[in-house]
Amino acid sequence: MELESLESCLNKHVPADELKEAKRILYGPECKPLEITEDAGNVAAAADFEIAGFEMPLTSNPRKVKIGLIQNRIVESTNAPISNQVTALHNRVAEIAKAASLMDVNVLCMQEAWTMPFAFCTREKTPWTDFAESAENGLTTKFCQELAQKHNMVIVSPILERDEEHGGVLWNTAVVISNTGNVLGKSRKNHIPRVGDFNESTYYMEGNTGHKVFQTSFGRIGVNICYGRHHPLNWMMYGINGAEIVFNPSATVGALSEPMWSIEARCAAIANHYYTCAINRVGTESFSNEFTSGDGKPAHKDFGHFYGSSYVASPDGSRTPGLSRTRDGLLVASVDLNMCQQISDKWGFRMTARHEMYAKVLKKSTEPDFKRDIVYEK
Amino acid sequence: MELESLESCLNKHVPADELKEAKRILYGPECKPLEITEDAGNVAAAADFEIAGFEMPLTSNPRKVKIGLIQNRIVESTNAPISNQVTALHNRVAEIAKAASLMDVNVLCMQEAWTMPFAFCTREKTPWTDFAESAENGLTTKFCQELAQKHNMVIVSPILERDEEHGGVLWNTAVVISNTGNVLGKSRKNHIPRVGDFNESTYYMEGNTGHKVFQTSFGRIGVNICYGRHHPLNWMMYGINGAEIVFNPSATVGALSEPMWSIEARCAAIANHYYTCAINRVGTESFSNEFTSGDGKPAHKDFGHFYGSSYVASPDGSRTPGLSRTRDGLLVASVDLNMCQQISDKWGFRMTARHEMYAKVLKKSTEPDFKRDIVYEK
Repeated sequence: MELESLESCLNKHVPADELKEAKRILYGPECKPLEITEDAGNVAAAADFEIAGFEMPLTSNPRKVKIGLIQNRIVESTNAPISNQVTALHNRVAEIAKAASLMDVNVLCMQEAWTMPFAFCTREKTPWTDFAESAENGLTTKFCQELAQKHNMVIVSPILERDEEHGGVLWNTAVVISNTGNVLGKSRKNHIPRVGDFNESTYYMEGNTGHKVFQTSFGRIGVNICYGRHHPLNWMMYGINGAEIVFNPSATVGALSEPMWSIEARCAAIANHYYTCAINRVGTESFSNEFTSGDGKPAHKDFGHFYGSSYVASPDGSRTPGLSRTRDGLLVASVDLNMCQQISDKWGFRMTARHEMYAKVLKKSTEPDFKRDIVYEK
Repeated sequence: MELESLESCLNKHVPADELKEAKRILYGPECKPLEITEDAGNVAAAADFEIAGFEMPLTSNPRKVKIGLIQNRIVESTNAPISNQVTALHNRVAEIAKAASLMDVNVLCMQEAWTMPFAFCTREKTPWTDFAESAENGLTTKFCQELAQKHNMVIVSPILERDEEHGGVLWNTAVVISNTGNVLGKSRKNHIPRVGDFNESTYYMEGNTGHKVFQTSFGRIGVNICYGRHHPLNWMMYGINGAEIVFNPSATVGALSEPMWSIEARCAAIANHYYTCAINRVGTESFSNEFTSGDGKPAHKDFGHFYGSSYVASPDGSRTPGLSRTRDGLLVASVDLNMCQQISDKWGFRMTARHEMYAKVLKKSTEPDFKRDIVYEK
């Protein structure tokens, strides 16, 4: 039996006066509830997904933007025909995006590799690599372009990319689509895991698109995919390139990463003076063939429970509660992009960062004759 | 009325089955209680301080070390003669260190500027700069050398340093003393805040000792003082130099930083595959003369409540509960230094870090003609 969420557990059991203080310590300055419109609520109820909305703390001079995050289970069985699986996911996301539109969301982001099961655990190439699509003109990108135009939203669509122009190799890529429907560009996953069942390095390499930031009508956004959230320098470079919101579309399971989940994206928001959006898929995905996990345990057919818990963190240290650990959901966060500059002016982490010094010592540390600066007793 | 601690609040109200799961999500793999010896418990009871002990998760091939963290209030009033204030703090720390010794602590660390009130909020030079001492042969270093020999402990002693050999300027410095009683060296605070009442930049500059790591009989240790915990590159360089434990002696108050407190040092432990020890002083310190805080509010005579909550975080994502938010305390954590390498081998953040790329782009970003990599719609 999975716990619904940490937040629901606290809300249920801790008395009001202590709850307020516990939440301040856990979540920082309070996020107020954002009213769910009747229409949006109806869509969510009919299609059976959670919808939650929050207004994050504001500056005195707000520049408001509404962010939407989608977390969802796969819809069809993993052995259904690929086109059925993809179409079912398109339809599911279209439903949730409709609710986002009814909540006036400006920028919407889906989970990592959202058109497919997270099948990289199997190490099987077939049929999974057939889920790969062109970032520029694949079916999923076309679907997202229509969605973007229809709802006047920027859409961040993380897919398995096949780069036909460069040998047809695969990448783990987020496509960024303007609210006009134009493809603004793409951002590839910079750091690839080799841990647990995350056998992604069997399929694709470390990204070569750097740390691009996309100027949209609703702020400057970057995309740090999944395992990149463990890498502070990766987060930092999006900030150096001017990001105000960095999305972290992910796919990760409980036993391995859950205690880190609430820490890393939030730490990045604080350290880099921008908003971060951590998105995780939800549910358990079963495969036809068994596989082992390099942990001495017997072969099995699923990756474990993807625990959802998607959230938004602000540069001021506040964060929203997480979505459910078990259900599909839409999280809507009204954020104030002016918070990025105001908190930078207040806390001054960028001003005090001493990047010149670190660029030098970091370079030195990569040279073959580098010796660590260790002091020994004489 | 200050909440005693988040942990005591959860323990009191959340039913056992949900509490276990809530703690897993919040704190990661379980830290087991470490038995408090009768003698140590008696010392703590008689001297009225909290004593808490935890055994953090172990590898299959443990290399165990016991870390002790001390958090404490000042003892004398801030307008008592300086030597009285210092002596009273020496005596207080000697009491707590005795309990640490009875718990077989190997490495003990005190809070930032532990021999004085955190008077930098006042912006007054007199009398506060008279608390400064030589790192190599000041009274406090002598005191710590005796303590180290007596108890066979490594001691990390963060003080206000006066560097007589270089113009008598001040530094915020941690002195590292071997269990033999020898001064191993010193490590200066690398990043100086300019936020809220943290007017430290009035007194001393950014440190010039780099990111030295000290090889002790009980592991390789580094010291990242206070505001340096907001800087991921600062944490990273201690890791690159081989640290297995990084102490973060601090002085910080609730309204400003408390929601970040449980995030940053823990994120650093995860990202850098080493143990981190976050130490905060406790209580409220009042000064004779009023001062303002640059926030439009009336002048006042204290800095706010230092919220204690000292804790240890492991590279495996686990952490101990925090010490009290209101009482003096000793936290003893039995850690397994082999966890650093094992978790690095498992998670591979160092292997996948792409430091060569980041050294290049970070350098570029500091050049005068740097242009951010921003994609605009055509």
